[in-house]
Amino acid sequence: MIRVLRYESGSSSPTEIDVDRAVLGARNTLLWFDCDDPGSDDLDDLGRRLGVNEFVLEDLRTSGQRTKLDHYSDHFHVAVHDCEVHGEDLTTREIDVVFGEGWLLSVQQPAEASTTGDFPMDAVRQRFEAQCVQHDAADVNLLLWSLLDVVVDRYFVVTDSVDDRLDAVEAVVLDDAGDEDVSLRRRRPRQLFDLSKTIVEFRRNAMPLREVVAAVLRRESGTVSDIALVHFQDLSDHVLRVSELIEAQRDVLTNLRDAELAVVSNRMNRSMQQLAAWGAILIVSTLITGILGMNFRNAPELDWGEGFLLVGGIMVVTSVPLFVYFRRKRWL
Amino acid sequence: MIRVLRYESGSSSPTEIDVDRAVLGARNTLLWFDCDDPGSDDLDDLGRRLGVNEFVLEDLRTSGQRTKLDHYSDHFHVAVHDCEVHGEDLTTREIDVVFGEGWLLSVQQPAEASTTGDFPMDAVRQRFEAQCVQHDAADVNLLLWSLLDVVVDRYFVVTDSVDDRLDAVEAVVLDDAGDEDVSLRRRRPRQLFDLSKTIVEFRRNAMPLREVVAAVLRRESGTVSDIALVHFQDLSDHVLRVSELIEAQRDVLTNLRDAELAVVSNRMNRSMQQLAAWGAILIVSTLITGILGMNFRNAPELDWGEGFLLVGGIMVVTSVPLFVYFRRKRWL
Amino acid sequence: MIRVLRYESGSSSPTEIDVDRAVLGARNTLLWFDCDDPGSDDLDDLGRRLGVNEFVLEDLRTSGQRTKLDHYSDHFHVAVHDCEVHGEDLTTREIDVVFGEGWLLSVQQPAEASTTGDFPMDAVRQRFEAQCVQHDAADVNLLLWSLLDVVVDRYFVVTDSVDDRLDAVEAVVLDDAGDEDVSLRRRRPRQLFDLSKTIVEFRRNAMPLREVVAAVLRRESGTVSDIALVHFQDLSDHVLRVSELIEAQRDVLTNLRDAELAVVSNRMNRSMQQLAAWGAILIVSTLITGILGMNFRNAPELDWGEGFLLVGGIMVVTSVPLFVYFRRKRWL
Amino acid sequence: MIRVLRYESGSSSPTEIDVDRAVLGARNTLLWFDCDDPGSDDLDDLGRRLGVNEFVLEDLRTSGQRTKLDHYSDHFHVAVHDCEVHGEDLTTREIDVVFGEGWLLSVQQPAEASTTGDFPMDAVRQRFEAQCVQHDAADVNLLLWSLLDVVVDRYFVVTDSVDDRLDAVEAVVLDDAGDEDVSLRRRRPRQLFDLSKTIVEFRRNAMPLREVVAAVLRRESGTVSDIALVHFQDLSDHVLRVSELIEAQRDVLTNLRDAELAVVSNRMNRSMQQLAAWGAILIVSTLITGILGMNFRNAPELDWGEGFLLVGGIMVVTSVPLFVYFRRKRWL
Amino acid sequence: MIRVLRYESGSSSPTEIDVDRAVLGARNTLLWFDCDDPGSDDLDDLGRRLGVNEFVLEDLRTSGQRTKLDHYSDHFHVAVHDCEVHGEDLTTREIDVVFGEGWLLSVQQPAEASTTGDFPMDAVRQRFEAQCVQHDAADVNLLLWSLLDVVVDRYFVVTDSVDDRLDAVEAVVLDDAGDEDVSLRRRRPRQLFDLSKTIVEFRRNAMPLREVVAAVLRRESGTVSDIALVHFQDLSDHVLRVSELIEAQRDVLTNLRDAELAVVSNRMNRSMQQLAAWGAILIVSTLITGILGMNFRNAPELDWGEGFLLVGGIMVVTSVPLFVYFRRKRWL
Repeated sequence: MIRVLRYESGSSSPTEIDVDRAVLGARNTLLWFDCDDPGSDDLDDLGRRLGVNEFVLEDLRTSGQRTKLDHYSDHFHVAVHDCEVHGEDLTTREIDVVFGEGWLLSVQQPAEASTTGDFPMDAVRQRFEAQCVQHDAADVNLLLWSLLDVVVDRYFVVTDSVDDRLDAVEAVVLDDAGDEDVSLRRRRPRQLFDLSKTIVEFRRNAMPLREVVAAVLRRESGTVSDIALVHFQDLSDHVLRVSELIEAQRDVLTNLRDAELAVVSNRMNRSMQQLAAWGAILIVSTLITGILGMNFRNAPELDWGEGFLLVGGIMVVTSVPLFVYFRRKRWL
Repeated sequence: MIRVLRYESGSSSPTEIDVDRAVLGARNTLLWFDCDDPGSDDLDDLGRRLGVNEFVLEDLRTSGQRTKLDHYSDHFHVAVHDCEVHGEDLTTREIDVVFGEGWLLSVQQPAEASTTGDFPMDAVRQRFEAQCVQHDAADVNLLLWSLLDVVVDRYFVVTDSVDDRLDAVEAVVLDDAGDEDVSLRRRRPRQLFDLSKTIVEFRRNAMPLREVVAAVLRRESGTVSDIALVHFQDLSDHVLRVSELIEAQRDVLTNLRDAELAVVSNRMNRSMQQLAAWGAILIVSTLITGILGMNFRNAPELDWGEGFLLVGGIMVVTSVPLFVYFRRKRWL
Repeated sequence: MIRVLRYESGSSSPTEIDVDRAVLGARNTLLWFDCDDPGSDDLDDLGRRLGVNEFVLEDLRTSGQRTKLDHYSDHFHVAVHDCEVHGEDLTTREIDVVFGEGWLLSVQQPAEASTTGDFPMDAVRQRFEAQCVQHDAADVNLLLWSLLDVVVDRYFVVTDSVDDRLDAVEAVVLDDAGDEDVSLRRRRPRQLFDLSKTIVEFRRNAMPLREVVAAVLRRESGTVSDIALVHFQDLSDHVLRVSELIEAQRDVLTNLRDAELAVVSNRMNRSMQQLAAWGAILIVSTLITGILGMNFRNAPELDWGEGFLLVGGIMVVTSVPLFVYFRRKRWL
Repeated sequence: MIRVLRYESGSSSPTEIDVDRAVLGARNTLLWFDCDDPGSDDLDDLGRRLGVNEFVLEDLRTSGQRTKLDHYSDHFHVAVHDCEVHGEDLTTREIDVVFGEGWLLSVQQPAEASTTGDFPMDAVRQRFEAQCVQHDAADVNLLLWSLLDVVVDRYFVVTDSVDDRLDAVEAVVLDDAGDEDVSLRRRRPRQLFDLSKTIVEFRRNAMPLREVVAAVLRRESGTVSDIALVHFQDLSDHVLRVSELIEAQRDVLTNLRDAELAVVSNRMNRSMQQLAAWGAILIVSTLITGILGMNFRNAPELDWGEGFLLVGGIMVVTSVPLFVYFRRKRWL
Repeated sequence: MIRVLRYESGSSSPTEIDVDRAVLGARNTLLWFDCDDPGSDDLDDLGRRLGVNEFVLEDLRTSGQRTKLDHYSDHFHVAVHDCEVHGEDLTTREIDVVFGEGWLLSVQQPAEASTTGDFPMDAVRQRFEAQCVQHDAADVNLLLWSLLDVVVDRYFVVTDSVDDRLDAVEAVVLDDAGDEDVSLRRRRPRQLFDLSKTIVEFRRNAMPLREVVAAVLRRESGTVSDIALVHFQDLSDHVLRVSELIEAQRDVLTNLRDAELAVVSNRMNRSMQQLAAWGAILIVSTLITGILGMNFRNAPELDWGEGFLLVGGIMVVTSVPLFVYFRRKRWL
């Protein structure tokens, strides 16, 4: 379905019109075509009426574009990727935007996973209309900004979620009290790997947006009004902040993985020391039983009672100091 | 063998002509020489007739060029590498393209491995002729685009195959249920190494194509028509996407290798804990048999029946709690 | 609360005035608005009177800006992050500076952690007034410099603290005398991780300041007097020095972590050698007791006295050389 | 000894003349001074007659220059490093080239190791004369090209040798059949380290040649004829290919080292599992002998014959299933 | 103390004069002020007379500058760091140079460690005077060059020392004959870490000199005579060579550390195999003693003599083949 909204400078709210009745080229008017069904023939027809390049039309039909800003004779193609976190998975959804003088066509590609919610196009509309009222202008670049700004705001949700997961894993990795559940510990490599995968995937989708916004700031996307420029400068700050956060998270994850290795090594070392300490403590007792089990002729004729006490005493006397010794060295 | 196709603007399909009858310099005509036998003398003769530089002629005879765009007085030399995956191996095949005003010579070098199939030159022809019809122009740059586009489409097949292998290895590495076949596990370092080798090799062949396409976009390869420019812009997006995918795969592989190390460490730790736990459980029983094996005079005159029951009972009483204890700590 | 100071060229000390009475645009006069309560309505009112852009006003209300220099029509927005170390934690506080011809508005955002002390705005004032007196000019860029200079001086405190912690951890990691407390050793992964986190966080906040200062030096922040330029050049040297120190500390930390891994491996190796050595020494004695415990008919009729001595002698004769041997190899 | 060759345009072969009789400045004449004895006074004299800068003269006397192109008033100094592999060692030899309008002085420094063969200056001469004949010009840049081309061709020999060693080590590392000789395995860290050292050394010598050739292509080395430019473009392709190969080899080596670590970890894990499995199998039998060794009064009066059979039977019955179990888990 | 030397063009040796009598601005005269006592008031006075900027004066008083070239109205400030190796420690000493038309002020800051010798200012003087004589000009840039050249020559001493230490550690790490002293091995992590610290520190001090020399070559330090330019070009080559050496040493160190890890893993593996092999050999004998220690009624009535021989024989027959087997597998 394609929803068409017509904005006019001076009027505070848009008129919703039919696709077929949309007339291009009217002055001070902005037509926003929003399509959430990229496979339809309607989109093809509309694209041709708008004079959209064949390559772009083909790109609109399916997802699979990288984040980019492409320039065609009189229109531009921006592809961005909306990111959402569901549990431990990052799902992305491509959004294609084609725009020219006085019109903008946004196409939401289907999300990778069926669990992903809809992209909040209403939030984009709200943000844009607030700007329209304030600046009394239905500027196509402001509409593009509204959309990208919503996308970037959602990136911050992703970085927050990654931060939470990093904190959770860090708590498990480093709080090595020893009473921790072993099965938890065994799940840690998977957790760390899933996190790293989320970050790699997120980075691949979010990072190139820097270049898109920078291109708009360099006015490579046609004439950009001063008001829109200020908006894009603010957006650029946000995008750069997301980039810096991702890079920092990558670093933290790397450090966490190194810490995990060190913790595992320490723990293995400890197991081995416990093994060694107990072995040392018991070896003496074993030796004694062995000696007294030997078949001598004139054995010292020990009574069971005294003998047992004596042997037990020797065992205690040799074991306890060793135990205390290892306890002090904290091997036990 | 050299196949020659003559395209004329306005005509929808090419004429296949003989090499010797090919006349250069006709207006609105494009001659495509396609050679799949780089060692032949025919190629040398043709190259000289086309005025191809001596260095290029030498390069055409054997493979061994890096991916590049070289500029000679009135013609250009593009070398690309077609990549294919066979099982776990990546095989590459160099394709040399020399082109000038009104003609293009494509030379397929023999593939590295004999198992590699032919390069689908027919797909190139189909793609080019579709464009010819649409834009009514037999543009040499469009022919170059068709060829590179087919090459890049095949790169996506490689990245898909790498993705599948990454997923397969990931499943084995992280699904550490413990009932896994040990011989499988021992093959994992080789699998990871083979994957990394594929990625290194693929990267070395695919990455430089970015610069070739960028050079065309900067019009370093002579005059490029606007139509061709749009095609190359689209191609550039594809090449950049391949690059981003490769980089992401490299990152995932690195993370996977770290996960593998952590999993192996954990498993070793676990083996050691099992060893220690069983040792602790059995040491008590061993000590008891040792004590009762000692030769005392007035031993407590235990009956075999009762004695055995008693000793067995003590063994169970000391072992079971230990077993339960280690079970709870999940050491067993 | 907003404190307003009016500096006039020629006068050595400022006049503190009321916000509402502050008049902009007077020649040779500099108004410094210092606000430590970013949520107040007063700040909004003031911002509007100063003609500050809406985006900047919104940014001033809450923290969350990256370190940056933004350019608006007739004013500039600089965001920096003051860093402090408390124990093992790095806390940061964002300081926003908006300035135009003849006025500067500094807004201290609340610190991340409540334990953080106030930002020493008085030191800024002192530094600025010293410069005012010396150069007899109330230059807004000199005020900006004073603030940034104080921030950067405090960065050096952070790098010093990181250096101290690096030295402390290094001493523990490498001084592996063996009598070291095991619980200390077990805390080391956390120490290393905490250090790495501090460095990542500090780097993310401090590094972008380089670009801000470089932008001022390229005179992107309006007209900068020659006197101010010299100040910013000096500041730039300091910022670069901080950057170099952070990078060096990152390297040292990485090396330290590698050293830690090697030390742990060596120690584990040693534990295993001790285990093996003791096992070898005792195995002979165990074997002897086993042999003499066997039930033969015509056993050599050894007397307990002689027998025990003999057996003990054999044990000593076989164990001592082994002990000496392992001692020499330094396994024990 | 200094060999002097005089090339004249139009003449196919050079005249060998005496150093003292060499006259500079003749039109269409190229003088090639080739010196293989850098310490001699003759070289000093010649350098002064050629007007070579004092610094260059000093550089010529001993080796120790980095690969570079330096520009002096009317002459240029190029230093390159010829690389050769002997067994596992990379030896390098510096070759200094000073050239101006109509003359070129090549100085071969002594090789680092005495086992290194001579640099094939005759191959350079052959390559140059072939070009002279073809283009009928004794161009100094063509002579420089000939020399660099021979050097780069020899680089390919080095990369081939590194490839062979990588393949050999890879086969040993990953072909972990278990029947491999332990002493071989113990030599692997050294092999990997030697390879890495070769690559580091080779990279340091070969990589900067890219910049030298790029500088010639940017015509920073005086006027370069079109013919020479095409030659240097071809050379540039070769140098870039060497660079790409080295980088790929570095990556493969890194991956190989990671694979080695994983293989070693797996093997250690396996040793531990074997240890644990055998221990588990034998512990039962040990326990039985212990129990039956106890001194009870009314022991079950087992006959030796039956008893031994019974006990042996129990041992087999308890051991074989365990053995089969571990065999199936592939621990044994 | 401040030593003042006055050089005049045409005169071969300088006149040593008193600070107070030094007159600036004389044509063809160069005044060199050399101060080794940066805290003194004399330096302040001199600085003011020379018109040195306040910031620079402050910088001269204490060390703590990064390597840099700063430009002030009519003079320049260069800070470099002289490096020296004492045992395993790298000590650095900052040298500040301020120079303008006709004068140069060099200030030696105190070295970090008291064991550091003096900076050889006499070598600088010698080098400069040799150049003065040769070019008959007392050029301030030549004096700067002399100083930097001495500093860089001393850098080569440091890289040589690092090379020696790398070789020494390499010999210990890789010459794993097994008879090596264990305490030596335990010191290796510290040696590797100390080396890495030296390299990090050296790199931080030496690397930025590249930019300083490059700035001089771009004539950013005022007018530089052609003669001086050639000198700085030579210096630039030396600095780049130092950089390349440091980078190569970093790579070698990383590789060495990886080799160390592999060696340690291998050795641990070997210890475990020895343990396992001895265990396997002895377990059979232990089992035999256990069996024959059991209390059966009609035991086979073995004589001690024969019995012992028989049992011993069985033990040998079962142990020797196992020993030979493990010996062949090189586990023992």
